[in-house]
Amino acid sequence: MKKKERYKSALSISDGITPPPSVSEDSVKKLKQKKKRQLSVDEFVAGILNGNRITLSQAITLIESTLPEHVEMSQEIIKKCIPYSGKAIRIGITGVPGVGKSTFIESLGLKLTGNKKKLAILAIDPSSKRSKGSILGDKTLMENLSGNPNAFIRPSPSSGTLGGVARKTREAIILCEAAGYNIIFIETVGVGQSETAVHSMVDVFLLLMLAGAGNELQGIKRGIMEMAHILIITKADGDNIQNAERAKNDYRNALHLYPPLESGWIPKVMVCSSKNAEGIDQTWDTILEYRKFTTQNNFFEKHRKHQARYWFYETINQNLKDNFYHNKDIRNLLKQYEEKVTADKMSAFTAAKSLLNKYYKNNS
Amino acid sequence: MKKKERYKSALSISDGITPPPSVSEDSVKKLKQKKKRQLSVDEFVAGILNGNRITLSQAITLIESTLPEHVEMSQEIIKKCIPYSGKAIRIGITGVPGVGKSTFIESLGLKLTGNKKKLAILAIDPSSKRSKGSILGDKTLMENLSGNPNAFIRPSPSSGTLGGVARKTREAIILCEAAGYNIIFIETVGVGQSETAVHSMVDVFLLLMLAGAGNELQGIKRGIMEMAHILIITKADGDNIQNAERAKNDYRNALHLYPPLESGWIPKVMVCSSKNAEGIDQTWDTILEYRKFTTQNNFFEKHRKHQARYWFYETINQNLKDNFYHNKDIRNLLKQYEEKVTADKMSAFTAAKSLLNKYYKNNS
Repeated sequence: MKKKERYKSALSISDGITPPPSVSEDSVKKLKQKKKRQLSVDEFVAGILNGNRITLSQAITLIESTLPEHVEMSQEIIKKCIPYSGKAIRIGITGVPGVGKSTFIESLGLKLTGNKKKLAILAIDPSSKRSKGSILGDKTLMENLSGNPNAFIRPSPSSGTLGGVARKTREAIILCEAAGYNIIFIETVGVGQSETAVHSMVDVFLLLMLAGAGNELQGIKRGIMEMAHILIITKADGDNIQNAERAKNDYRNALHLYPPLESGWIPKVMVCSSKNAEGIDQTWDTILEYRKFTTQNNFFEKHRKHQARYWFYETINQNLKDNFYHNKDIRNLLKQYEEKVTADKMSAFTAAKSLLNKYYKNNS
Repeated sequence: MKKKERYKSALSISDGITPPPSVSEDSVKKLKQKKKRQLSVDEFVAGILNGNRITLSQAITLIESTLPEHVEMSQEIIKKCIPYSGKAIRIGITGVPGVGKSTFIESLGLKLTGNKKKLAILAIDPSSKRSKGSILGDKTLMENLSGNPNAFIRPSPSSGTLGGVARKTREAIILCEAAGYNIIFIETVGVGQSETAVHSMVDVFLLLMLAGAGNELQGIKRGIMEMAHILIITKADGDNIQNAERAKNDYRNALHLYPPLESGWIPKVMVCSSKNAEGIDQTWDTILEYRKFTTQNNFFEKHRKHQARYWFYETINQNLKDNFYHNKDIRNLLKQYEEKVTADKMSAFTAAKSLLNKYYKNNS
């Protein structure tokens, strides 16, 4: 089975578990028979608010579509869901492949769903095209969690630019929250540009790392460590315990030398072993401690508003750029101007101005 | 005397020291008499290439002007100077006020000019409006250096956006290099956004810090430490020597935990005392070592091309944004849409799209 298919089947299994409470058996049957019939906006919203996983899943698919009528419809749905969103804690989690993200999320997830929490796990992975499958496609991933009725797992959209994928993930958060999920995990692979995007949509950011000298960090992009609120040294079991403890102390000392976070929070370093289920409770306690700390000093709410503002401007700026760089005349000239600039044959400013003049002339 | 005036007088003193070699005494006199007469593009270029400080200074003033005819003329000058530029080493230097940037630059500058190097010192400080004077306006600053014929000191443009100031500084670098300055310092205050801009126009980036616990770092913006190629603990003299040495070791250990730089260079940490003229020679040696290291692995040239490309795209992107946000209709609506977004009354995407539709409709 291909990774993608494995997902789909995993999704359909768990999707069937919670039937929409306020929708009759008949209408469910009808829905299944008339698979092609598109739900109306109100049906979508009602289904989501009732915690219907099929409807939620379909609505996210709609968000991921680029068809203009789908975009319009999904925006209507989001608009009606926004008032019911915002109550979850949004947790970003990153780390290089092999650090143990999946087992960590599964351990934490099983603990939380056991405590009657509803957990949604979303992924941002614009590189999935290259790696042929999203992060969440790992075959060993979350076998125990994916069948759990209180866990909703959704892989990254399979295509699109980072900006597009980020927007879709952000809107999926809104729908998941409206559907009653009170803990949202956003997972990234920690080697690309996507961490900044994730950082801009979560409340708290976790970085998973392996113990040892600096070398194994090569995969982690510079700047990511500075974003972390909680740094977790994984695989602290067996022979690795001492290494992990040493790494914890090293990072703790290092983080103290760096400028403090705007929130006033001092990044915490912890060790954990998913194998021995150690450090999982402490991690969750630290996440709650972070929320309490930032709620009390009003940073939590301030940060959420800041993020909303960020995405508003980010959407505008991205669109302005898309419109320019996708312009046919510009596309034809861009490479040749860029070459002149890098060969010191033209100043960056002159080259840019010249292209911009052409662009505005054609568009007016 | 106001800071600004102090500058101007400092500039005029040092400007007079090196007369243009290939320009006759007569024409210099004429130039001084007919102050109002604008030089032609070719006269500007000839003066700059001859190392005439007055002409260089006037050309930079032209770059700083926003008058369309000045912009056009300055771009012509830059175009003709580009082939003669690029041979200097461009050094970024930052640190919070009080860390001793000025004395450090002066110590290093006196050493270099003593070795017949020609040194230009430029500043980026878009916050100067707020702090009433550019960094280089500090009254104690560089008294010994400002009268030196081999040092050209130019304060930050007194107004403009960061993008504008950065562009002007970048173009001033080209002119200074064409005028024969083979070492360029770009100074910033280390607390704002401007470090990223500086980082994008220099070959090597120095961060000056004080010894001691984490607290005094509060002024340094997060992310700046990760940009530094050379970290310098200043004021390592008297009672402070031990502190400085301890800080050096702490930072050295911490930097090893962070992901390596793209160039493969491992950031160096050094101590220095401008008072005792200690560590100045070593700093310069380390700068040269950095240049040698990155030249040998071809990063130096690659990085310069990357920067040229960056500024090309940055200029385009900034202009697209300016055009949108300065649009009268947009300006009137922007605040009210932003409020809806932050109050969760509208999705970021819907709000952005709605404004963009209005913008494109009005412009076509």
